[in-house]
Amino acid sequence: MEDNSKIILGVDPGTKITGYGVIKTLNNKHIAVDYGCIRPPQKYPLSKRYFIIFDGIEKLIEKYKPHAVVVETQFVKKNVQIALKLGMARGSIIVAAEKNNIPIYEYAPRKAKQSVVGNGAASKYQVQKMLKMLLNLSQDPTPEDAADALALAICHAHQMDFLNKIRT
Amino acid sequence: MEDNSKIILGVDPGTKITGYGVIKTLNNKHIAVDYGCIRPPQKYPLSKRYFIIFDGIEKLIEKYKPHAVVVETQFVKKNVQIALKLGMARGSIIVAAEKNNIPIYEYAPRKAKQSVVGNGAASKYQVQKMLKMLLNLSQDPTPEDAADALALAICHAHQMDFLNKIRT
Repeated sequence: MEDNSKIILGVDPGTKITGYGVIKTLNNKHIAVDYGCIRPPQKYPLSKRYFIIFDGIEKLIEKYKPHAVVVETQFVKKNVQIALKLGMARGSIIVAAEKNNIPIYEYAPRKAKQSVVGNGAASKYQVQKMLKMLLNLSQDPTPEDAADALALAICHAHQMDFLNKIRT
Repeated sequence: MEDNSKIILGVDPGTKITGYGVIKTLNNKHIAVDYGCIRPPQKYPLSKRYFIIFDGIEKLIEKYKPHAVVVETQFVKKNVQIALKLGMARGSIIVAAEKNNIPIYEYAPRKAKQSVVGNGAASKYQVQKMLKMLLNLSQDPTPEDAADALALAICHAHQMDFLNKIRT
C-alpha cells in the first residue's frame, strides 16, 4: 500500500537553544518521531554556534528526510541586536533546508498555538498538555523549545490537511 | 621560496546585494584577485535568496581558498525587520565560512574606511579612489558593495600586518 504519510520538521530558532520536533502525519493523526534541542556551547564564538545549528538541522534532515521544514515567524519588538542574532540563527536553518531542497514554511507562534490548543493565546502549559495528547506521549514534551517546535510541525500538518480538503 | 602571501575574502552582506572582494596580500602590498556582487533574483522567495548567498560564498571559498573571511559589522538603528533580514544574510555567509573552517573576522565600516583612507568618515568616492590606488586597478572598483568588501579585506590585511609587527 502506498505510504501517504508526511514527515514534518518543526524548528524554533534561537542562538542559545534551537528546539526541533519531527512528526509523522497521516489523515490528521500524528506521531512524534523525535524532538529535542540544539544547544551550541556558549563558550564558542557566535559564528561557530551558528554552524552548529546549521549542522544539527542538516543532520536531522539527512536522518528523517522531512517533506517540509517549518520555522517559527519571529517577532522581535524593539531590540535590533537581538533581531540580528535571531536572524543569523534563522538563516542557518533556512540554508540547511534549502541546501537539501526541502520546502520551508513559517507560522507565527499564535497560529501554532491556535492550531494545537484552539486558542492563539494558550499558555505553554496548555500547549504541552495538548501535544502530549495529540502525539500520544507518555509525558509532556519538554523543554518548551522542543514543545514549540512540535506545535509548529502539527500546525503545518493541519494546514496541509486543510489545503488537501479544499483541493479534493 | 616560501609563499607567505595571504588570500582574504571581504564580504558586505545584504539581502539584495552581497558585495565581495578577494585580495592577495604580502608585506602590506595588495592585489585584487576578484570582486563583484551576489544578487539573488528578487523574484525568488527569501529563503532561496539566502541559499544563493551561502552557495555563492562557498564557491568563492572553494575557488580562492582564503585564509580569512571578513564580514562587515552591521549597524541597524531601529528597524527590527531589516535587522532580522540582514541577520539571515549574514548567517548564510558565516555558515559558509565555518563549514569550510575559514576563520571569520569582522570590522565596523568606520574601521574599514579608516584603514583604507585614513579617515573613518571618508566618503564612498574617497574609498573607491584609494582602493584604485592601493590595488593598482585600472578603474574605480564598482559597485559600492564590492568596494566596501575590498576595503574590509584591506582593513584585515593591515590588522594582520600590525599584529605581526607586534609579535616580531
